[in-house]
Amino acid sequence: MAAVSIPPPQPNATKYKVALLQLPVSPRKEENIARARARLDAAAAAGATLVEIWNCPYSMETLPSHGEDIDGGASPSVSMLSEVAARRRITIVGGSIPERSSGRLFNTCCVIGPDGQIKAKHRKLHLFEIDIPGDITLRESDTFTAGQEPTIVDTDVGRIGIGICHDIRFPELAMLYRSRGAHLICYPSAFNMSTGQLLWDLMQKSRAVDNQLFVVTCSPARDPNAESDYMIWGHSSLIGPFGEVITAAGHEEATVIGEIDRSMIQTIRENLPLEMQRRDDLYQLVDVRRESSGHETCAA
Amino acid sequence: MAAVSIPPPQPNATKYKVALLQLPVSPRKEENIARARARLDAAAAAGATLVEIWNCPYSMETLPSHGEDIDGGASPSVSMLSEVAARRRITIVGGSIPERSSGRLFNTCCVIGPDGQIKAKHRKLHLFEIDIPGDITLRESDTFTAGQEPTIVDTDVGRIGIGICHDIRFPELAMLYRSRGAHLICYPSAFNMSTGQLLWDLMQKSRAVDNQLFVVTCSPARDPNAESDYMIWGHSSLIGPFGEVITAAGHEEATVIGEIDRSMIQTIRENLPLEMQRRDDLYQLVDVRRESSGHETCAA
Repeated sequence: MAAVSIPPPQPNATKYKVALLQLPVSPRKEENIARARARLDAAAAAGATLVEIWNCPYSMETLPSHGEDIDGGASPSVSMLSEVAARRRITIVGGSIPERSSGRLFNTCCVIGPDGQIKAKHRKLHLFEIDIPGDITLRESDTFTAGQEPTIVDTDVGRIGIGICHDIRFPELAMLYRSRGAHLICYPSAFNMSTGQLLWDLMQKSRAVDNQLFVVTCSPARDPNAESDYMIWGHSSLIGPFGEVITAAGHEEATVIGEIDRSMIQTIRENLPLEMQRRDDLYQLVDVRRESSGHETCAA
Repeated sequence: MAAVSIPPPQPNATKYKVALLQLPVSPRKEENIARARARLDAAAAAGATLVEIWNCPYSMETLPSHGEDIDGGASPSVSMLSEVAARRRITIVGGSIPERSSGRLFNTCCVIGPDGQIKAKHRKLHLFEIDIPGDITLRESDTFTAGQEPTIVDTDVGRIGIGICHDIRFPELAMLYRSRGAHLICYPSAFNMSTGQLLWDLMQKSRAVDNQLFVVTCSPARDPNAESDYMIWGHSSLIGPFGEVITAAGHEEATVIGEIDRSMIQTIRENLPLEMQRRDDLYQLVDVRRESSGHETCAA
């Protein structure tokens, strides 16, 4: 049987500001980290209490050499995120970055709390495998290992589900986060020009309206002069539960800040009670981990 | 456990033409039927072998008086569809129309084969209930009874799943049809101006790309002079498995004809094997009726 939905916890403030940092990324990690620190500080100064950021170039050739051992405390990227989060008292959804662990490489996003501690770590669940002859061929599984758990976490701004890039293509993951009480799903992503044109808007809006919650995506900025044949789409966005674009970047470097009003979720779910209209007698989405653990599965 | 996907049957022809008849509808049923017959004949003459058509005004006030007893053979609308289907040797997805049965009213769509026989009858599963104060309030359940079964049917052009209007809002139904081997989902629909603007394109494209199949929607034409406060959106569309618009109407009366090339489904599923990338260890969609019946559930 499908589990009943978990009501989300109610943080103190209904509204908060989220900043999306769409940054240029280069193969020089120190430069990326320094730029990210400066932009995080600026976003916090502008009132953002949740910041999503992407700080690594997406290339199967260079990613392995950027691998960082997060669990071992040897991650310059996460150290910087922790330092800024604690100093500015903000929550940061940071990544994704290549994570080295036990000889394997994961595509990982960390959620850092205002105390500077890692509250959750999401390892990309769905590796991107595509083969369109003459257009694009890419097998992430040659480089990465897939994660083993959905990631949903209680933060100072509310309960958040995390997905990375291709994770957004799977409606089941967003449905699972909704049923576990997420008010927001964050997808750090690096779509390319073909998938971006076809799918970027469509995926984030449909996950938002199907589940009546907020969705943010955060991409690196496009580098039109990059030598890689993987040109980045950009267009980091904050989408509301009606599918409306609250704020969105273009393809250049940008920090965009938008407001999330959690009360909109309650309003739209009262206006249009999709959850009650579902036909559990015909279909049920089983949340396997939650079923087998027999309790709420939310990191905090 | 989630059932494994059923491979779709392979009809003889890979390509066929589908016509979408976006017709004006008035409270005068005979007029609607006569117009629909003429347009069906024209679409068949233009080479369409599958035709989707909508022939009833959407109004909670007038729908009950249009009720027809399909099972009892007292349905002027279905009689006309059968007559044209048999004479032209085409498949027609006809509806929706209000169906009277055992003192209840259903919102029903019939699939008629080239022999003029009803091959399947879909009763809308998800009744539309919305309450946005000052904008729109509508409770279909005051008028209609919901159907009890998903509808998937083997036709001369391939296996088709059927949904009506608000059924498209539920990703689970489309996923269920995909897993039962549908190459196409037909959604006769009458979105209004607010839901149309926000959701029409989004819903049909996301059902198509999430399930890597074709989606057609068929709406009545908009009547800008209608006295009803439920103004129709229009924009009947045929969407391909990449989310591409193959053909689409505006909001006026139109017959649009597009080609469905079933081989595109195999191509995209080979290029981007979403089905294999799903994480059955984390989530599973249970098709309740199929699980409980223990066999394929496809009308033919």
